[in-house]
Amino acid sequence: MATEETGMNGITVGCQRSIENGEDYIDSLRGRGLKVYLLGENVDEPVDHPLIRPSINAMAATYDLAVDDPDLASAHSSISDRRVNRFLHITESADDVVMQNRMQRRLGQLTGTCFQRCVGMDAFNSLWSVTFESDEAHGTPYHRRLKNFIRHCQELNLVVGGAMTDPKGDRSKGPTEQEDPDLYTRIVERREDGVVIRGAKAHQTGCVNSHWIVVMPTIRLRPEDRDYAVCAAIPVEDPGLTFVYGRQSCDTRSMEGGDIDVGNAVYSGQEALIIIDDVFIPWERVFLCGETEFVAPLVERFTAYHRRSYVCKTGVGDVLIGAAATIADYNGVSHPSHVRDKLVEMSHLNETIYGAGIAASHESHRTAAGNWENDGMLANVCKHNVTRFPYEIGRLAQDLAGGLMVTCPSEQDFKSPEIGPILEKYLKGRTDVPTEHRFRILRLIENMTLGRNSVGYLTESLHGAGSPQAQRIQIARQMDVEGKKKLAKKLAGITE
Amino acid sequence: MATEETGMNGITVGCQRSIENGEDYIDSLRGRGLKVYLLGENVDEPVDHPLIRPSINAMAATYDLAVDDPDLASAHSSISDRRVNRFLHITESADDVVMQNRMQRRLGQLTGTCFQRCVGMDAFNSLWSVTFESDEAHGTPYHRRLKNFIRHCQELNLVVGGAMTDPKGDRSKGPTEQEDPDLYTRIVERREDGVVIRGAKAHQTGCVNSHWIVVMPTIRLRPEDRDYAVCAAIPVEDPGLTFVYGRQSCDTRSMEGGDIDVGNAVYSGQEALIIIDDVFIPWERVFLCGETEFVAPLVERFTAYHRRSYVCKTGVGDVLIGAAATIADYNGVSHPSHVRDKLVEMSHLNETIYGAGIAASHESHRTAAGNWENDGMLANVCKHNVTRFPYEIGRLAQDLAGGLMVTCPSEQDFKSPEIGPILEKYLKGRTDVPTEHRFRILRLIENMTLGRNSVGYLTESLHGAGSPQAQRIQIARQMDVEGKKKLAKKLAGITE
Amino acid sequence: MATEETGMNGITVGCQRSIENGEDYIDSLRGRGLKVYLLGENVDEPVDHPLIRPSINAMAATYDLAVDDPDLASAHSSISDRRVNRFLHITESADDVVMQNRMQRRLGQLTGTCFQRCVGMDAFNSLWSVTFESDEAHGTPYHRRLKNFIRHCQELNLVVGGAMTDPKGDRSKGPTEQEDPDLYTRIVERREDGVVIRGAKAHQTGCVNSHWIVVMPTIRLRPEDRDYAVCAAIPVEDPGLTFVYGRQSCDTRSMEGGDIDVGNAVYSGQEALIIIDDVFIPWERVFLCGETEFVAPLVERFTAYHRRSYVCKTGVGDVLIGAAATIADYNGVSHPSHVRDKLVEMSHLNETIYGAGIAASHESHRTAAGNWENDGMLANVCKHNVTRFPYEIGRLAQDLAGGLMVTCPSEQDFKSPEIGPILEKYLKGRTDVPTEHRFRILRLIENMTLGRNSVGYLTESLHGAGSPQAQRIQIARQMDVEGKKKLAKKLAGITE
Amino acid sequence: MATEETGMNGITVGCQRSIENGEDYIDSLRGRGLKVYLLGENVDEPVDHPLIRPSINAMAATYDLAVDDPDLASAHSSISDRRVNRFLHITESADDVVMQNRMQRRLGQLTGTCFQRCVGMDAFNSLWSVTFESDEAHGTPYHRRLKNFIRHCQELNLVVGGAMTDPKGDRSKGPTEQEDPDLYTRIVERREDGVVIRGAKAHQTGCVNSHWIVVMPTIRLRPEDRDYAVCAAIPVEDPGLTFVYGRQSCDTRSMEGGDIDVGNAVYSGQEALIIIDDVFIPWERVFLCGETEFVAPLVERFTAYHRRSYVCKTGVGDVLIGAAATIADYNGVSHPSHVRDKLVEMSHLNETIYGAGIAASHESHRTAAGNWENDGMLANVCKHNVTRFPYEIGRLAQDLAGGLMVTCPSEQDFKSPEIGPILEKYLKGRTDVPTEHRFRILRLIENMTLGRNSVGYLTESLHGAGSPQAQRIQIARQMDVEGKKKLAKKLAGITE
Repeated sequence: MATEETGMNGITVGCQRSIENGEDYIDSLRGRGLKVYLLGENVDEPVDHPLIRPSINAMAATYDLAVDDPDLASAHSSISDRRVNRFLHITESADDVVMQNRMQRRLGQLTGTCFQRCVGMDAFNSLWSVTFESDEAHGTPYHRRLKNFIRHCQELNLVVGGAMTDPKGDRSKGPTEQEDPDLYTRIVERREDGVVIRGAKAHQTGCVNSHWIVVMPTIRLRPEDRDYAVCAAIPVEDPGLTFVYGRQSCDTRSMEGGDIDVGNAVYSGQEALIIIDDVFIPWERVFLCGETEFVAPLVERFTAYHRRSYVCKTGVGDVLIGAAATIADYNGVSHPSHVRDKLVEMSHLNETIYGAGIAASHESHRTAAGNWENDGMLANVCKHNVTRFPYEIGRLAQDLAGGLMVTCPSEQDFKSPEIGPILEKYLKGRTDVPTEHRFRILRLIENMTLGRNSVGYLTESLHGAGSPQAQRIQIARQMDVEGKKKLAKKLAGITE
Repeated sequence: MATEETGMNGITVGCQRSIENGEDYIDSLRGRGLKVYLLGENVDEPVDHPLIRPSINAMAATYDLAVDDPDLASAHSSISDRRVNRFLHITESADDVVMQNRMQRRLGQLTGTCFQRCVGMDAFNSLWSVTFESDEAHGTPYHRRLKNFIRHCQELNLVVGGAMTDPKGDRSKGPTEQEDPDLYTRIVERREDGVVIRGAKAHQTGCVNSHWIVVMPTIRLRPEDRDYAVCAAIPVEDPGLTFVYGRQSCDTRSMEGGDIDVGNAVYSGQEALIIIDDVFIPWERVFLCGETEFVAPLVERFTAYHRRSYVCKTGVGDVLIGAAATIADYNGVSHPSHVRDKLVEMSHLNETIYGAGIAASHESHRTAAGNWENDGMLANVCKHNVTRFPYEIGRLAQDLAGGLMVTCPSEQDFKSPEIGPILEKYLKGRTDVPTEHRFRILRLIENMTLGRNSVGYLTESLHGAGSPQAQRIQIARQMDVEGKKKLAKKLAGITE
Repeated sequence: MATEETGMNGITVGCQRSIENGEDYIDSLRGRGLKVYLLGENVDEPVDHPLIRPSINAMAATYDLAVDDPDLASAHSSISDRRVNRFLHITESADDVVMQNRMQRRLGQLTGTCFQRCVGMDAFNSLWSVTFESDEAHGTPYHRRLKNFIRHCQELNLVVGGAMTDPKGDRSKGPTEQEDPDLYTRIVERREDGVVIRGAKAHQTGCVNSHWIVVMPTIRLRPEDRDYAVCAAIPVEDPGLTFVYGRQSCDTRSMEGGDIDVGNAVYSGQEALIIIDDVFIPWERVFLCGETEFVAPLVERFTAYHRRSYVCKTGVGDVLIGAAATIADYNGVSHPSHVRDKLVEMSHLNETIYGAGIAASHESHRTAAGNWENDGMLANVCKHNVTRFPYEIGRLAQDLAGGLMVTCPSEQDFKSPEIGPILEKYLKGRTDVPTEHRFRILRLIENMTLGRNSVGYLTESLHGAGSPQAQRIQIARQMDVEGKKKLAKKLAGITE
Repeated sequence: MATEETGMNGITVGCQRSIENGEDYIDSLRGRGLKVYLLGENVDEPVDHPLIRPSINAMAATYDLAVDDPDLASAHSSISDRRVNRFLHITESADDVVMQNRMQRRLGQLTGTCFQRCVGMDAFNSLWSVTFESDEAHGTPYHRRLKNFIRHCQELNLVVGGAMTDPKGDRSKGPTEQEDPDLYTRIVERREDGVVIRGAKAHQTGCVNSHWIVVMPTIRLRPEDRDYAVCAAIPVEDPGLTFVYGRQSCDTRSMEGGDIDVGNAVYSGQEALIIIDDVFIPWERVFLCGETEFVAPLVERFTAYHRRSYVCKTGVGDVLIGAAATIADYNGVSHPSHVRDKLVEMSHLNETIYGAGIAASHESHRTAAGNWENDGMLANVCKHNVTRFPYEIGRLAQDLAGGLMVTCPSEQDFKSPEIGPILEKYLKGRTDVPTEHRFRILRLIENMTLGRNSVGYLTESLHGAGSPQAQRIQIARQMDVEGKKKLAKKLAGITE
């Protein structure tokens, strides 16, 4: 296959240079002319928008970690025969799957938010085996194309966003039953050189910060839904794409100029709605096209990977536990047993999430395509705990923070020459701790439990990678009730 | 007592006209020349500030409800021999205590937030019996003064804020052990005609919206802390007072001009820091001055009243349950059993709070001073559940809302002629429901679980009227372990 | 009505003498020739059977309490114009309903188990209004008959068991759909002088210890189910009745001769299956016969009363909390903060149950028939918490007990001259506490969390008065989702 | 070392023949002349005692599983260079640690109870590294002796019980502070050929069913406690040992002759008190003697292994979930969504335990001595969830069981010619299911939640391997609060 040998795999659109580190990555995003709507306006340059920039910084951290700790955040890939960012790596062992979790926790610790690069990693790994199986079954060319595309991304060290969630319209109806057929992304034209697709993808993590997005169907499909069975890669600067930035709690604090009231000045997450307005995709970047029977396996494998990727939240939880311990110190109440006990409870819950997640990864099996896939039951259990425990951890953090967290004056007041010194006097905690430090840590806890990063730590923990009920359905499927009944009947002395 | 017969009880400062309804109340707040700092600036007229106004509207609702439903929100007072707003009423029966709870729940339902008038009500009722007992013990004149002041407030229908919480500095130290003696409010001068006090009061609910504040000590005091044992009424426009407005999650959305992204455009809560800069108070408005032994009873009675006042949160919970049920409808998923089951769970938790609260009120006893005081154990139990269940109710509401709640574009985008129609198309849920309705209800849930009113529904539910540990200490005191041990030993056949 | 004037209301079967106190009550049960099966044998005299007797003692406590504390456990009835045991009282005020709860908690404290007399009390009070309404609607004579029967029971101070729960067979099918029509109790013959009924009643609390049982239907019925719509009183010694004693965890320890391993030597609960083998009931004791439309109200009112009657479990909880505190003392660990904290948590949960229960009673309303009925929502909420919290309280009690609770040697070993002294040495806790005391309190906790009285404190807390799902259905019915949606839409600015 | 080459390692006491399978194992226990007290009597032959036998059967299952599934339940040991029962295996890889968990879950599924062989396995593995380190530090001969002893046990395939828990007396005092110095096991004499020890070990799992017990100290010791720092192996038939059998809920049902009311007729757990009355141990079987500084590491490592060994409870949980699903079937209610949802919740909790446990094993590290030891934090988290979730799983199982579980007549009644057929009629559920099957499954659920095996599934889950507070202390030690504070401060912009 000639294209595979030449330059960047013959893919001639999108970013065409190899990215070295976080700073380089940020540069790579400039000047792309994206259509990004935010607060009613089309943003000139997302990279320089104060509300958007923290989400770019979080993504940049995934590059810098690979430089700072290559064992953790990069791996040797046999696809491109080079060391690649782990987010672009196709797992070659159970340990590779485990290392993803370690890296995710670390990045959660470093950023205190969603660093947005997991969806693409999990999409690549699930497509890897699904395209392989489709090719085996139907002689389709998907696996080769995917490999080619992955090699391209590895060589240039690109960010690839996985775009799965359709808007879905009336939830009681399937894709073809909607009044508006575009509420699930679909093929509107099949051409000789490729396909044209239309629709939208909602809640797209880090999409504005990506170089490519890979669209995938969001639910199992029936044979008659074949136009909805499409997987393909689109460069983010495709003119048919429009991005509408999702509003987050307290988002405009980033535009106020300070660095305290934002809580976490450097990092945030990002979710946007992508409108796909009749985008043409050449065959070389199409990885599924009408094979509806492979959609269910794709969704199931992707969610299996992705539900255990939520151990990233334990890294965020580490930050919140640390913040809670710090404010207790600053308030002068680090000694009481109930304070210590709450920190223990927070840690216990946080590690319970981690346990199920890393267990899922350790219990990986090799797929027919050769990559490694984690255990599904434990991944669902991990994610299901993620839909519960961060809320309790957040509640306990607020308990230790005290009411000042939500009654504290603004940063502008603290800096005001008139009222600032008075606040300095009256809002002091322990005398050896600057009032500003106390104020900063309270704002961080606010940020993580009510403000901008609570979006990622709480609500997105509920719904990302599937809402709680989705995990329950999956647990029901895998819990082997019939096998368990047999165990019980045997011990009860029942023979049927 | 001549002063009691003349005009407005001889109190010649503060608001001097009787207030009829909400609108009239709002007018009464204008032109007071308060020093209110907000976002670094001294606010010209708080009434017209878009960020402050919703909190005034919530307070105004307490006036309007008394007009619309006088049985619920007013009562005949034997002090002024007239029908008075229930928030100014000294309870004359157990039923009066119960009616407070019913009114509180209703106002929670109507405003979806903290309407700020309970603290004064609970302060008046606890001071009623404490001043009586001080007078009995020491021949002090506090009860008569208090009665006189209450009559004044009743006649003019004023808002009285109870100001209890001191900044506290280093929590491991008491008032006199702090490096800075002002971190608890204290008497700095005793004069012939009154006292001068200094300090601050933190987290003061609705103080900018009040006509008077009544300061009270915040913790039990030792004999040597007598300068800190002061209760007294101060008019809000006293020039020695400065208010620094507490920042809330998403507060500046109120300043963006729209009415959707705010979630609840009309109502919000208010907390501010009050700086008391050497304020003189004439004796006629001093209700405790140095009698440290009456501080513990005052704090305990106030918290007994106030902890069961938190049934207001069940009214807010009603709104959130309704919002969750509405979004399920709009998403087209009102039928699945898990949706219904979550609404049941939310209601169960909400009513569990209400049960303990209203039970505390029903189980009231008459004090020596003649008013009625609720059961302490059940009030603590009510409040302790309030520190837990709203978080779970909020989590379940977010579960039913779906991820769109935190990824939804801004109101400005929806109204943009360019991108608005596209959002209308792609974010539609059930076809018979306008997309805007869906958007509005999502913003309301965001408002109550992450945004501005989450401050009141969540964090303030934790810390208001005492943090969780305060209730546990009180439950420990009242749980009668020794009596319970006797029951157990008897049944176990143990005779000691 | 001549019968009402003569002697014991003209009811000439069953116990015919007035009972004074517990001892007298026990005597009244002798020599009745009941058919009671227990462990495969027909019991000669239940009163003297060591396994049955503790349940009789618990019932006797309801008599003794009325003597010892008449304000609590008796009331003046306008039906018989005399002071009657409160369990036989038709409520004449909200306070009467509240006093039932106070009495129930006290009896739970005194017996540590189910004292079995509430079902009859709740049956009488629900039948009171239902028969009244049937008479109003159809001119039936049920209310007069019931009043006559109640007067009889009041005058003789009898125990009346309410018999509601049918065996139900295949739960997915209604009464007439069962293969065997007898799986719900039904009328098999209508005669001129009365009816003949057949069927069974399962889980009948205290039935062997009763003088009368009142049968009632167990679920809402359709018009075609009219043979199943029957309420009537049957004397326990009716030869058509057979009782099969329910087996309880550790029941035979009562037959081992000691008083320690039983945990609670004096008191226990009782549940039995009643077989009703074509029992004739004269019209005078028939209170419903075919009026299927009154069955749903009867069931709903009965469960409303009965679900809040479960505050009895808070009395049992008081014992368990006391036992846990005692064993902590005996182990020498009463001081650690985590021990105190667990006692606080147990108390908090226990009082949360009590709060909802007593609130339901306080919030009673007068029925058309003149008696008072508690709030349904809060009663369901109370019971629903009873299906959860005792398990957690029990878990915490076991936590404080330590593992010895389930590894402790037998009473016979402790009393053995060979091994006893060695156990005395090695199982000693605090040196000033006799080892036997420690042993006794451990056995009490075992009794309440695994043993005989765990049946009442745990499993029966789940299923008595309806399993958890029954409360959820009732909460769903009463939670007024539509009203709550309106509140939310108003605040969200939605007008439809 | 000559002894290591000859025959059975020169150990000439205890069982001297190699055991093949479960039956063979049972035979090996006969005729040992143990002093076992049970219900006040010295048992003639424990193997044939109906109350004891089920616990022996459970232990026998560990032999049979090694025959039936050698990959799962045996391993090649480099110590004896042969395939050995996995319970006697010193872990040689992380996978070996993981395989222990898999085997434990399987045995929990097969027996529904505690199979008693884990303590010895975990004791061997923790002693392996501790003796190695003691030898390194002090030139002691412990590791060689231990290895010799392990080889002996491997060659004969013996059961080794780990005996750690001392009676502890007054918990507020350490070993030497007790009034009676024997309340912690101690050396009373040091002789030339060995030591003499005295004391007791409480809650000893499976000790009567063992061939050897290895005593170990139970808490960290101070230098002055050196007499208490002793590890050594004693043959169970040593005449200085006396066993007092722990009483369990419903234990005597095993002596009633039937096979239904027992719930699980074949298997049970076993806990006993061991009295150690001046037992002499030759040096060759002494593995620690006075080195107090190695006691803390020993306890910590043992609990690290053992707390994750509690994944056995997930196997028991599988049985209980299966039983709950079966009774729902039999009752005719397997379809309602709330039933399915409860099974999902039970599974989710069960797998959450498993996740943390297996994760702890996967995350093993190699010790200096060469064997593999699991992660401590995750092991503590696993065990801490075990102290909570089985209670909730048990509650849900009881919910699905229905009230009949605790009101069902006895097996004797069912078999009675008089009353049996009537019970058959009235207690039938679904018509195609024999009433006896329904009865049997109810008894199994009773057995696991209130009866004999609830001891292991509930209470022992709380206290085995350390009570909840012990895990909280360990989590506190390992949660790295300081590291977490640094993460938080960095993100909050605090530099100190």
